[in-house]
Amino acid sequence: MERIYFDNAATTALDPEVLNAMMPFLTEKFGNPSSIYSYGREVRMAIEQARKSVARILQVNPAEIFFTSGGTESTNTAIAAAVYDLECRHIITSPIEHHATLHTVEYYRERGDATVHYLKLLPDGHIDLEDLDRLLSGMQSKCLVSLMHANNEIGNLLDLDAAGKICKKYGAVFHSDTVQTVGHYSFNLRDMDLHFIAGAAHKFHGPKGVGILYVNESVKVHPYMHGGSQERNMRAGTENVYGIVGLAKALELANARLETEMKSIGKLKEYMASQLKSAIPETRFNGDAFGNCLYTVLSTSFPKSEKSEMLLFNLDINQICASGGSACTSGAEQGSHVIRALYPETDRVTVRFSFNRHNTNREVDQVVGKLKELI
Amino acid sequence: MERIYFDNAATTALDPEVLNAMMPFLTEKFGNPSSIYSYGREVRMAIEQARKSVARILQVNPAEIFFTSGGTESTNTAIAAAVYDLECRHIITSPIEHHATLHTVEYYRERGDATVHYLKLLPDGHIDLEDLDRLLSGMQSKCLVSLMHANNEIGNLLDLDAAGKICKKYGAVFHSDTVQTVGHYSFNLRDMDLHFIAGAAHKFHGPKGVGILYVNESVKVHPYMHGGSQERNMRAGTENVYGIVGLAKALELANARLETEMKSIGKLKEYMASQLKSAIPETRFNGDAFGNCLYTVLSTSFPKSEKSEMLLFNLDINQICASGGSACTSGAEQGSHVIRALYPETDRVTVRFSFNRHNTNREVDQVVGKLKELI
Repeated sequence: MERIYFDNAATTALDPEVLNAMMPFLTEKFGNPSSIYSYGREVRMAIEQARKSVARILQVNPAEIFFTSGGTESTNTAIAAAVYDLECRHIITSPIEHHATLHTVEYYRERGDATVHYLKLLPDGHIDLEDLDRLLSGMQSKCLVSLMHANNEIGNLLDLDAAGKICKKYGAVFHSDTVQTVGHYSFNLRDMDLHFIAGAAHKFHGPKGVGILYVNESVKVHPYMHGGSQERNMRAGTENVYGIVGLAKALELANARLETEMKSIGKLKEYMASQLKSAIPETRFNGDAFGNCLYTVLSTSFPKSEKSEMLLFNLDINQICASGGSACTSGAEQGSHVIRALYPETDRVTVRFSFNRHNTNREVDQVVGKLKELI
Repeated sequence: MERIYFDNAATTALDPEVLNAMMPFLTEKFGNPSSIYSYGREVRMAIEQARKSVARILQVNPAEIFFTSGGTESTNTAIAAAVYDLECRHIITSPIEHHATLHTVEYYRERGDATVHYLKLLPDGHIDLEDLDRLLSGMQSKCLVSLMHANNEIGNLLDLDAAGKICKKYGAVFHSDTVQTVGHYSFNLRDMDLHFIAGAAHKFHGPKGVGILYVNESVKVHPYMHGGSQERNMRAGTENVYGIVGLAKALELANARLETEMKSIGKLKEYMASQLKSAIPETRFNGDAFGNCLYTVLSTSFPKSEKSEMLLFNLDINQICASGGSACTSGAEQGSHVIRALYPETDRVTVRFSFNRHNTNREVDQVVGKLKELI
């Protein structure tokens, strides 16, 4: 049996076209982009071209885009900037954010730099935006709101426009971890009330180790990483040139296929859900799976049993890659904080399937057949 | 005229063997190392192999090696850890450190988290270690000492053993920016009194965007980047797998050729110095060029004149890559803080030449010939 990769929310394969775009910078064009001679400037130009391309796709100014080492650094930078530079003494977030947000805000809470407030969840796993309005209306000092665009485990999508408008009403700073949506949805950041977003190239067939941070030009912040004057003094350190070039290329490719992918991957998700339901009627879907949800993610659950508790292990033996939740926390083996927050009483086994455009109905059939056997 | 690359202290070309080692992870082995299925674990194993290899070469435990996005992040992490986790209220450093150190310590000084003391320099640009002893002997509370192993502009080497012993005597935490020496000198960290060192792969023919941080097991520190449990909870974010694999491979190759390179590159440096002296008798060499100094760097200066002020520009036109100082600060165009600190009254033009094993005497002849013409 060939390997079936249904874990594209964890990471995606590097697109060969992206690797092609990176290759010149992994070989002859190795100069330091900060060097002033023409050979360095050539490399600098590639970075600035990449910045322009990303900015055009996200509909912002190139000066608002910074390249980082990934989504985690971007989110760490945004939160540090909000706390230290924009003087946000309160942080409002949700219990189902990625750990890049949760552990960072807890760090500032423990240091006594900020108070952290967790929003209520609706029964379908969406953030209660009325709770956000209520909380913000009672705030006496400046507040950071950090809410992810799409939950990486259950796929629920936040209405960024609605959340942004509430933040704007109360003058709050708004950061969104958009790691699961950059390259999968179109953005018009110019028309949105967002101050920071974070993206990671490896979630849309770009390279690992590189990400973007958008910082709205209305906010003035200091670097998170201190040193050289790279990234216009905002992010020190010799640039990951191939990474940056690869990120931009991957985003261009993703953006060009957005419409068709949304349809085809969305159909695959629906197909898998219906096949699962008929093969294993006890299947449930976490979150708002068929409502406001990522078209790339299907989070399922099955009744707990001796067999189902070994499900991920047995899927692995059968060359099927799927995950219990976030890859970032799988090392910790404490189970998913997202599922716990949403279904505290659950006695079910969760498996997240997440797709890319190369996945097929045939693969779905094979996975569903195997699941039926294993449960 | 073919391009002559004499700026290897800024960055080095990726070794084709290193790229070969990275390729599987840029293609079929794209799994997320945090995923628990075998396909992810395979990638995890490559990272742990890389860690073991780096640890073996530096003679430390693998648990003491952390992978970062580069030297700047490593140094930022070490200094933040010393200030916040090890409660160093004083920082002793020198005025000729890399900006990754200087701007970071200034950041903590401005925040009121630490007091910063700058060591005196000896006339040859070496750090006055008696001043270090004197300063430390008067310290009432815990102190971080941050001194680079080799100065990136003039090449001067610090006696790490001597500095480490002084730090140990007073219970100070010792961090060294070893970005210019990892991969160029052999280290036996187990026998050294160091708590942190920082390295960057792209300085020894490895990839950009990846570095190492050594943290001595005697010190317990928190992560700088918060989020997932990667790097044993010390550095969150999906790992730059190809970068890490490339770093380890580059360090292995560098380590294997250390002895021969030291000799051959050292000879090339001497050859260039003697050729320069006879072609342009006004040439001077910055720092302790032929004493305790990097064999890879030759920092020269020439009398200022209308012609020499255009020197770097004219070298560039002639396809010769060399730099005025650090690439990291060249964007800033404020001149070199290192040269200013060492030669405050200077009215000379500085050019740093830095070599790799592919550079030849013939290239030296061409560059010296061109310099004679241009000055």
